[in-house]
Amino acid sequence: MSILNLFNKSRIEVHGKMLTYSFSDTGSDSLYQHLYKCIKNDILARNLRAGEKLPSKRSFAKNLGISVITVENAYAQLISEGYLYSVPKKGFFVSDISMLPSGAAFGQNSTTRSLSDAARQTNITNSARMSNSADVGDTTELTGLSSPLIDLTSNQTDIRNFPFSIWAKLVREVLNENQQELVTNPPCGGVRELRSAIARHLKDFRGISVAPEQIIMGAGTEYLYSLLIQLLGFDKTYAVEDPGYRKIARIYEKHRVACRHVPLDESGVCVSALEESGADVLHLSPSHHFPTGLVTPISRRYELLGWASRAGSRYLIEDDYDSEFRMSGNPIPALQSIDLSEKVVYINTFTKTLASTVRISYMILPRHLADRFYRELSFYSCTVSNFEQYTLAHFIENGSFEKHLNRMRSYYHKKRDLLIDRIRQSELAPRAVIREENAGLHFILELQTTLSDEEVCKRALQKGLRIAALSGFYARLAPGVEHRFIVNYSALPEEQIDGAIRILCESIG
Amino acid sequence: MSILNLFNKSRIEVHGKMLTYSFSDTGSDSLYQHLYKCIKNDILARNLRAGEKLPSKRSFAKNLGISVITVENAYAQLISEGYLYSVPKKGFFVSDISMLPSGAAFGQNSTTRSLSDAARQTNITNSARMSNSADVGDTTELTGLSSPLIDLTSNQTDIRNFPFSIWAKLVREVLNENQQELVTNPPCGGVRELRSAIARHLKDFRGISVAPEQIIMGAGTEYLYSLLIQLLGFDKTYAVEDPGYRKIARIYEKHRVACRHVPLDESGVCVSALEESGADVLHLSPSHHFPTGLVTPISRRYELLGWASRAGSRYLIEDDYDSEFRMSGNPIPALQSIDLSEKVVYINTFTKTLASTVRISYMILPRHLADRFYRELSFYSCTVSNFEQYTLAHFIENGSFEKHLNRMRSYYHKKRDLLIDRIRQSELAPRAVIREENAGLHFILELQTTLSDEEVCKRALQKGLRIAALSGFYARLAPGVEHRFIVNYSALPEEQIDGAIRILCESIG
Repeated sequence: MSILNLFNKSRIEVHGKMLTYSFSDTGSDSLYQHLYKCIKNDILARNLRAGEKLPSKRSFAKNLGISVITVENAYAQLISEGYLYSVPKKGFFVSDISMLPSGAAFGQNSTTRSLSDAARQTNITNSARMSNSADVGDTTELTGLSSPLIDLTSNQTDIRNFPFSIWAKLVREVLNENQQELVTNPPCGGVRELRSAIARHLKDFRGISVAPEQIIMGAGTEYLYSLLIQLLGFDKTYAVEDPGYRKIARIYEKHRVACRHVPLDESGVCVSALEESGADVLHLSPSHHFPTGLVTPISRRYELLGWASRAGSRYLIEDDYDSEFRMSGNPIPALQSIDLSEKVVYINTFTKTLASTVRISYMILPRHLADRFYRELSFYSCTVSNFEQYTLAHFIENGSFEKHLNRMRSYYHKKRDLLIDRIRQSELAPRAVIREENAGLHFILELQTTLSDEEVCKRALQKGLRIAALSGFYARLAPGVEHRFIVNYSALPEEQIDGAIRILCESIG
Repeated sequence: MSILNLFNKSRIEVHGKMLTYSFSDTGSDSLYQHLYKCIKNDILARNLRAGEKLPSKRSFAKNLGISVITVENAYAQLISEGYLYSVPKKGFFVSDISMLPSGAAFGQNSTTRSLSDAARQTNITNSARMSNSADVGDTTELTGLSSPLIDLTSNQTDIRNFPFSIWAKLVREVLNENQQELVTNPPCGGVRELRSAIARHLKDFRGISVAPEQIIMGAGTEYLYSLLIQLLGFDKTYAVEDPGYRKIARIYEKHRVACRHVPLDESGVCVSALEESGADVLHLSPSHHFPTGLVTPISRRYELLGWASRAGSRYLIEDDYDSEFRMSGNPIPALQSIDLSEKVVYINTFTKTLASTVRISYMILPRHLADRFYRELSFYSCTVSNFEQYTLAHFIENGSFEKHLNRMRSYYHKKRDLLIDRIRQSELAPRAVIREENAGLHFILELQTTLSDEEVCKRALQKGLRIAALSGFYARLAPGVEHRFIVNYSALPEEQIDGAIRILCESIG
């Protein structure tokens, strides 16, 4: 048995193909922390190379003489930091950190962020707003708990909230009555009936007045961002909000276009910082910022439109992703509806209002961009199936969508009130402040704790609760954002509320 | 009235906002040709600027004292050559040819092609394989005929061929029985049940043995190409077949990646030319080349695999888009199934086998690329709705897909035989040779004529038949490809066969 003392505190031993570590001197670390550090060091030292398969949790635990949960926790931590990735049914593998510049793991093209920032970012991408964790780093499995994970980061639709019976009725009608339309190639922008229905809905509901031809349907907003890069230009510089929904930045980075993070102040995107960033295109969510919950006031909206008007290449991409669920207060007009200079591309989605698994989103292009779209990109086929476009068109047209929205708003309102009430009545109350609870489907919970945000999230996860910290959504950490956690309650079943509060209490030390 | 003699043969007159031309001296040109040339010259001379709206067909015809059909034909020609574009319900507009280098209209980044080549290319993009002409240059409207256009370029599914009743039954079952699955976010690669069903189908039908995890679902192949560019690299050089399906090249060009056109010889992609092109990635359709119908023999397949193996960055993208409809002869193994070096990405789609409006395609990644996909791109949500993924999974699993394929194969077989019989019995017979009729859903019709291909297509269109010439699919014209026309019979109703043959007879002079 060859023994290689690598880091003065861990030992790596290789016999046959089995990787082992010594646990004789773990210092003040827990077993899981020790194992986490050993593997991480071996990856950084290239003793474990990209693509190399790690032992299964069970065999590794047996070999090391520790519990499976300890291995699971170490793997979960390494996955969340991007050192490992999991392939369904295959196992755990070492990420390729060597091909990327320092601090730029996972295709981030910034050279200033540290690896831990990149890791934090990955954590976010895997857990936030539109979480899609089934392929990589499935924490449900990793926590190894028999009770189901309570997930305050999920956007998944509760099965009780999807309007199955009316949807089934409409699908049946469409399949009976619209057969010719169903097999007829739609315009590249999508089925006309659906775009007209959306235009009418926007006029009634959001005060947005557009021609159906300005509406372009796409299979999810992510796809629309890709189309927008092709439309606005690969040579443009794109700006995203900091903090913000990190998937947007990843999409820009994966398309190899320049991307800047612009800080927010108390009114939203800071215009002077935006000016300094050199950005051409700003992506923002003014009606309900993710994750802070901030609503950009009308004055700042005009300032941002002013910024956009000062150069021909400048545009605002207004992501209005959950404006339908605004809880109280006067709705502020969409940027799109006060834009007289054709500077705003408005994006919205039915993944929030219907189900995250229904991939129907749309963008509204200003007229000159719509013209450019038809001229340059009309060779693309619409990515949404006709079957779902016609079903949704009928769903909107016959009033079902409005009814569904009202029902959901009331449902989310009640759930939010219930959750807040329970928090206020719980032992968490003296240590909790609830912020930004009036818009959208999440709020910010500020907790009094001496533990780091990472430690709180980790402890909660070990006890079966997934929650994300606000600090994790910053590219550059601002002061005073610690101890704030994002409570996405849209997918939280009522029966899990007390469990969630109890785990939070236990996790803040 | 100011008169401006611009081109010695046309006169442009502007009074108020109405554009007019003199028809007093049209030389040997027809009225429509004269009008076409006048407008084209004004666009080239920048008298008509990008984005400028042209008069409506009706008012223009009235003002010029000519028939609406003459205006329609001139507009149709200008649209097909890319000088104009139409916006649904808005009208006809001048394209922006000024921002593009000569010969590179419509975002083609080659600087060697002439404008007429680019125009030919546009014509193709609007009409071929997966035609999507509803938004721009809708010839049905432009021909102004009362009888429906006969379209030999369409891929649209005949309403009689979509399995509506079984599909409706399965949708109903899925909506009843799979509610939890329907609202649960699938893995980024797609719903596991569907990927497993496809893996089993490929094994049984195509001799392709893959793990479901290697299969990535996407809303159409166009979307998958975009994912592949992100996976294989924006810095790579991509090669496409010349002649070939031009939409692929446009997608590469719209993503601003280097794209080369590699000529074919009698066995498929010419390996020496491929080597010279400096390409890293070759996109090809070896089982049934579009548009020539060529089937790449096994020897060339091995040569291409050899080429790919000689450098780490090299890959083959095998587009197997209509292999299910091979009519006769021994099927040749897919490149994917003889690839031992993980060099082949296999792509196929259900838009050909089910309906062009069902946007479900998939790619099979070699294992190391699948790993890279999960590592780098798993933050993307799957673009296909769960509802259709589960319905299709059941459709494949319960044997309906196989039955449907058999029925369609037999249907297409009969239609092809009928069409060929009718051609052979018609007055066209002495002047027609039919080529490459044994694979896929189109064949090549070689016609004896002294007219140019453009002229034949134009005459046919004026008489109500849309057909594309093989020569239109070449980036660099090879000798001996004239007078060959592509007959895509998949969407041709039987009752239109005689009309199509009659119009072809009348169009070849």
